[in-house]
Amino acid sequence: MEKYLVTGFSGFVAKHFLDFLDEQEVPAYVLGVDIHRPEFNIYGFKYVRCSFERTDLLDKDQVDNIIYQFQPSYILHLASFSSVAFSWKNPVASFANNTNIFLNLLEKVRGMNLDCRILSIGSSEEYGNVHAEDMPLKEEHPLNPISPYAVARVSQEMLSTVYVEGYGMDIVMTRSFNHIGPGQRDLFVISSFAKQLVSMARIEGKAHLVTGDTSIIRDFVDVRDVVRAYYLLLKKGKKGEIYNICSGTGTTLKEVLDKMGMILGTEVENQVNEKFIRPNDNQIIIGSNDKIKEAIGFEPSIPLDESLRDIIEYWKEQIEQTHENTL
Amino acid sequence: MEKYLVTGFSGFVAKHFLDFLDEQEVPAYVLGVDIHRPEFNIYGFKYVRCSFERTDLLDKDQVDNIIYQFQPSYILHLASFSSVAFSWKNPVASFANNTNIFLNLLEKVRGMNLDCRILSIGSSEEYGNVHAEDMPLKEEHPLNPISPYAVARVSQEMLSTVYVEGYGMDIVMTRSFNHIGPGQRDLFVISSFAKQLVSMARIEGKAHLVTGDTSIIRDFVDVRDVVRAYYLLLKKGKKGEIYNICSGTGTTLKEVLDKMGMILGTEVENQVNEKFIRPNDNQIIIGSNDKIKEAIGFEPSIPLDESLRDIIEYWKEQIEQTHENTL
Repeated sequence: MEKYLVTGFSGFVAKHFLDFLDEQEVPAYVLGVDIHRPEFNIYGFKYVRCSFERTDLLDKDQVDNIIYQFQPSYILHLASFSSVAFSWKNPVASFANNTNIFLNLLEKVRGMNLDCRILSIGSSEEYGNVHAEDMPLKEEHPLNPISPYAVARVSQEMLSTVYVEGYGMDIVMTRSFNHIGPGQRDLFVISSFAKQLVSMARIEGKAHLVTGDTSIIRDFVDVRDVVRAYYLLLKKGKKGEIYNICSGTGTTLKEVLDKMGMILGTEVENQVNEKFIRPNDNQIIIGSNDKIKEAIGFEPSIPLDESLRDIIEYWKEQIEQTHENTL
Repeated sequence: MEKYLVTGFSGFVAKHFLDFLDEQEVPAYVLGVDIHRPEFNIYGFKYVRCSFERTDLLDKDQVDNIIYQFQPSYILHLASFSSVAFSWKNPVASFANNTNIFLNLLEKVRGMNLDCRILSIGSSEEYGNVHAEDMPLKEEHPLNPISPYAVARVSQEMLSTVYVEGYGMDIVMTRSFNHIGPGQRDLFVISSFAKQLVSMARIEGKAHLVTGDTSIIRDFVDVRDVVRAYYLLLKKGKKGEIYNICSGTGTTLKEVLDKMGMILGTEVENQVNEKFIRPNDNQIIIGSNDKIKEAIGFEPSIPLDESLRDIIEYWKEQIEQTHENTL
């Protein structure tokens, strides 16, 4: 039976990965590790047998034990402190919880000489400072990280390459663009918009949102497409290669708001507040997905409108539940 | 009085830096920190007042105390696990003792909002995999690190850039090529050659050396030129900029051996042993020093022959002393 070690298990990407894995209707064993307990039912799958170990990946002994005992055939390394804003406030913690935890994993797999494929998740943030004429960003575009988080991600990627070339380890790398989808926390912009709009539309029938710059363009990709890409890369990606995971199209935040208003049948007013505008933020980020398309035939299948509908549905349920609970 | 914090204080570069600083005939206060005690007399200077604190830079509390109490105007950050070979055996320690110690320093300087210039020492290893047609390497050449050590150095450099641009800190960066000079440990190739040749010539009148590939070409720069460059960069380098420190010329190891033979008046036979040949090693590395020349007028002044004569003199003294001590 295939054995998957999934780090960052309690996040929303892991949950979608498990759903996808279960849909493959092939028995699989998953050990999830995270600092936080997952909020979903880990026994709710048909083909996937799940267990969970609360683990601090900064603790080398814990990492060693987990890998020694489980001996995974695949590691999906989702764990990360993925907030750029947090990394500015606490660069050391950001670095430790990205680069150093990854090194702990690699070292144990190397030390045991384990036959195990590792998927190292990177970020479009690695590209850093880019210009409109560079779009869509291809994997060979130079990296110019402009936040502590982005530096940690580039370091993780460079280490992966060194471990592949120097030690022959089996690592595949991604640069994942903005994921969206149901279940994402409202720390992230699209989820935050959806939650606010749903709450306001419910009460007032129209919505007034205070935001940062909504003219910025991002490449949004549905988390359910993302986890399918991760699965395919674990199965068919080429060792040592880096793949963008993105939709290939750019959308302004303004367009997203308008689409959400249409879905909700609500008028959306948007007021820009300077204090929500991040300095250094790129005006435009769009990725090219030619490489992954050509290499493993992956193409995103879920259109933005469908993602947004599902996200809004998710928040409607959440808010309905909260409301029922408080009655 | 100017206050210099010098990390990696017990290494040979720091000693040469102190000599240079003393020659400026300007009173200066130096606090040296290192895990190991220095082997030189820290009270032997005329203008430089030195003290030493045994310090583990991985220990955040120790770093915090040092910087809080000393409040340096300059930090010359020489501390590093600089062996590529070691980094392959212990990548985690290499990463921690390069990147993480640097972050500890930066964070305290940032937290205290200290008006302090930091010189971050990098390495020509950052360029990684290069080709003959890329020579001489300019600072804008893409980085392609191929060892854990090199990745750690690139991370340090990227973090420097982020701290300059994101927090406005005053950091200048180097990529230093192969330093040579009297006092260097025989872990390093030129020093090792010299020590062996001096020992053999003393006893047999001729020398037979087993080496790795002596056709490889490196850019050797005298440590006394290097420390002068460091001093000038601390004084006049441009914040956020990266400077190669190199001679600008390439020399094969074979030529170095021949020159040493001439200086010693000894015939040198050289036998290449496969097991000393490092996989992945670059055939040729030569830097361009145009940028530092133009920016601050620095040019190396000590020709290779003079460096080699001084290195041989150094080993003659060392070996003479050992011999006397054992009589």
